[in-house]
Amino acid sequence: MARSFLQVADFSASELSAVLDAAQAQKASPEGAHRRAWAGRTAFLIFQKPSLRTRVSFELAVRRLGGEALYLSPPEVGLGEREPAADVARVLARFGDAIICRTFEQALLEELAAHADLPVINALSDWEHPCQALADLLTIREHGGAAGRTLAYVGDGNNVARSLMICAAGEGMRVRVASPPGYELDAASIEAAQARAAASGGSVEVGGDPAAAVDGADVVYTDTWTSMGQEAEAKLRVEAFEGFQVNAELLALARPEALVMHCLPAHRGEEISDAALEGEQSVVFDQAENRLHAQQALLWRLVQ
Amino acid sequence: MARSFLQVADFSASELSAVLDAAQAQKASPEGAHRRAWAGRTAFLIFQKPSLRTRVSFELAVRRLGGEALYLSPPEVGLGEREPAADVARVLARFGDAIICRTFEQALLEELAAHADLPVINALSDWEHPCQALADLLTIREHGGAAGRTLAYVGDGNNVARSLMICAAGEGMRVRVASPPGYELDAASIEAAQARAAASGGSVEVGGDPAAAVDGADVVYTDTWTSMGQEAEAKLRVEAFEGFQVNAELLALARPEALVMHCLPAHRGEEISDAALEGEQSVVFDQAENRLHAQQALLWRLVQ
Amino acid sequence: MARSFLQVADFSASELSAVLDAAQAQKASPEGAHRRAWAGRTAFLIFQKPSLRTRVSFELAVRRLGGEALYLSPPEVGLGEREPAADVARVLARFGDAIICRTFEQALLEELAAHADLPVINALSDWEHPCQALADLLTIREHGGAAGRTLAYVGDGNNVARSLMICAAGEGMRVRVASPPGYELDAASIEAAQARAAASGGSVEVGGDPAAAVDGADVVYTDTWTSMGQEAEAKLRVEAFEGFQVNAELLALARPEALVMHCLPAHRGEEISDAALEGEQSVVFDQAENRLHAQQALLWRLVQ
Repeated sequence: MARSFLQVADFSASELSAVLDAAQAQKASPEGAHRRAWAGRTAFLIFQKPSLRTRVSFELAVRRLGGEALYLSPPEVGLGEREPAADVARVLARFGDAIICRTFEQALLEELAAHADLPVINALSDWEHPCQALADLLTIREHGGAAGRTLAYVGDGNNVARSLMICAAGEGMRVRVASPPGYELDAASIEAAQARAAASGGSVEVGGDPAAAVDGADVVYTDTWTSMGQEAEAKLRVEAFEGFQVNAELLALARPEALVMHCLPAHRGEEISDAALEGEQSVVFDQAENRLHAQQALLWRLVQ
Repeated sequence: MARSFLQVADFSASELSAVLDAAQAQKASPEGAHRRAWAGRTAFLIFQKPSLRTRVSFELAVRRLGGEALYLSPPEVGLGEREPAADVARVLARFGDAIICRTFEQALLEELAAHADLPVINALSDWEHPCQALADLLTIREHGGAAGRTLAYVGDGNNVARSLMICAAGEGMRVRVASPPGYELDAASIEAAQARAAASGGSVEVGGDPAAAVDGADVVYTDTWTSMGQEAEAKLRVEAFEGFQVNAELLALARPEALVMHCLPAHRGEEISDAALEGEQSVVFDQAENRLHAQQALLWRLVQ
Repeated sequence: MARSFLQVADFSASELSAVLDAAQAQKASPEGAHRRAWAGRTAFLIFQKPSLRTRVSFELAVRRLGGEALYLSPPEVGLGEREPAADVARVLARFGDAIICRTFEQALLEELAAHADLPVINALSDWEHPCQALADLLTIREHGGAAGRTLAYVGDGNNVARSLMICAAGEGMRVRVASPPGYELDAASIEAAQARAAASGGSVEVGGDPAAAVDGADVVYTDTWTSMGQEAEAKLRVEAFEGFQVNAELLALARPEALVMHCLPAHRGEEISDAALEGEQSVVFDQAENRLHAQQALLWRLVQ
């Protein structure tokens, strides 16, 4: 069965580190030998949610490796509705070399991977966003390094937080997550991250106090309080996340040169202030660009 | 006027046979001379229905011939609504080299072909599915050959059945079609198939008894009882097609090594049992893959 | 800040003339040196309205310059809804080399251009359609030349009319616009066109009488009375435009060999008769084809 990347834990910490090494090398030498790694290969982009960064960065990553990208929008696939995921996977395995899937349910990714004899990549599910985490760690590496530094994630214990925590822990970061009651990350993910931290020399602490998390941090990260599909509970969430906004007041507790990170799209005035997002400490557009470089390295890795 | 492929009958039996020969040759030698046949050429994919296999197989076929494929979804074209088909055809003829169209009404394909000075290919209409038939015959050729063998189609006398019957008759197969009352193929199509069979040494028999059709058959083929757009009459159709399911019981009447074929998507438990679809006799994913090879050969043929 | 083309006035008359020169040269020599101008470059097509000609002609133009085109449909971008235009622009600037945008509000284009460090091209807004004007002038040049000849635009003082008037005035044409009361072009645009005409030796006259506009004209141009998004007022508009149809009677007032132009899609029996659109004087499909050549030259120009 082909190697897939459905969640951060599908790769060991050293494997992820090697992907990040490759991303840095390929970004520095865009005309390197990797340029033909996907020649004659095709990747299918199956998206059940609208997407800008994910669509563009994956499609360009495939092309920059010399491959073909074929984007399939929701109605074209009818994944799990018009046709079972298992059948879609087996058909696409006859035609191409990877499925890059943005979906809601993690189980759908697992069903694709179980039946397809080709790699399946999680391009965002409700459970994880592992490629975003790769891009984030690449960005942190570029801005002062990861190992030994403190990353504070403030906000919803969602897919982005989960992947980031596990990936950063494996890279040797001191990870602190602050979420309001009812929006915490699950115990199993926290334990998985702590196990990686124990091996890497990092640490993972989870709590409910943004100030404590950000105190002396090198990186302050947040994400939207209301992800796509949660619009109905937006008002409830805005109330629950009161005090969790990343703004000048909160950033004053971090190190003066602390990075401000966000995976975009941002909701200014909710999870982050306009000043924080647009300030000199913000590296949010580097993160966006690094989606391309990190995913390119991942795709390259999957065909080595 | 450019040569089009709107229905199986647009090509003689010997022309279809030559396309299948080319498909087999190109599949065996993917790096052959055909690789540049579409260099500098562009094919437009105009789809009025969602599609997975058709979209992917045509887009890859064009690219593997060295050409450019440009997919246009329904709202981008507004074919016959926002703009008359005749105008769309004439505009696209200025920009490219073929129109591959998945539509409802056969008349729309004919209107495109009448006004466009470029080939128009039927990628599925309510009336015919000629490229599926090419892929099916290619699959049958690969699994024991077509001429002289018996093909039993059990189910709706729809577009798939019509194209398959005429194409298989021309290839010298003994075609048997079993459909319930009210869902039979039309007399003119049956006569066209019988005329081809008379020339090829095959035969065409149409009736209402699945067991009689399948008795001793080399190939057992079925398709969904409820095609896209017929959802409103789904319940009625399930009742009408009682006894027409391809399952172990029915397959026991065919030859032991008989192929099980379905153009997908399949509705397990309706027109076919899960065991039949997933069994060792099933070649449904070969059929899906052969869409690519058959269409590639057709596209190659249209620019010779 | 990168050079953009949001409206005709963003380029001087001599710059537009040079683009048209390049378009003619590249059309005559499709294998010329321009073929690699966009090698390694990517253009994003962001469309908020459905499109046939615009989508196809831009995507092929980019590819024929050796570049990559990446089409993003409305839900994928959520421009100004799911994400502010400024953020979309900054993200895309990290990934590619131009944004080609079909939108409603001109202000959205200006916001994209203000924040993106890459060229933004107006592929149709409610205010202007500058690439259509380039294609139209290229067509007029090919059919007898532009300078000194008379162009009569009969109909709605819309985006197409505005861009055409300013562009044609700069090319030295005698421009006459006839629109019914309430549907005239704005004074500022008329003054801008008159300023260009004063420098080029052309002229611009605006009135409400189709017969006076068409009298002795070399080119008679019209456009739909009801553009996309105005369907609710269609009936009102049909009444307001009574007497403004381009038909045999009106064309009899123009020069015998006068060109009939329309940017398509056309509504036969409304703004133009079927006979006029399909007659020997009609060059509407040349206009459509020239979208490709004009836009290719523009894209080439933007990276020189």
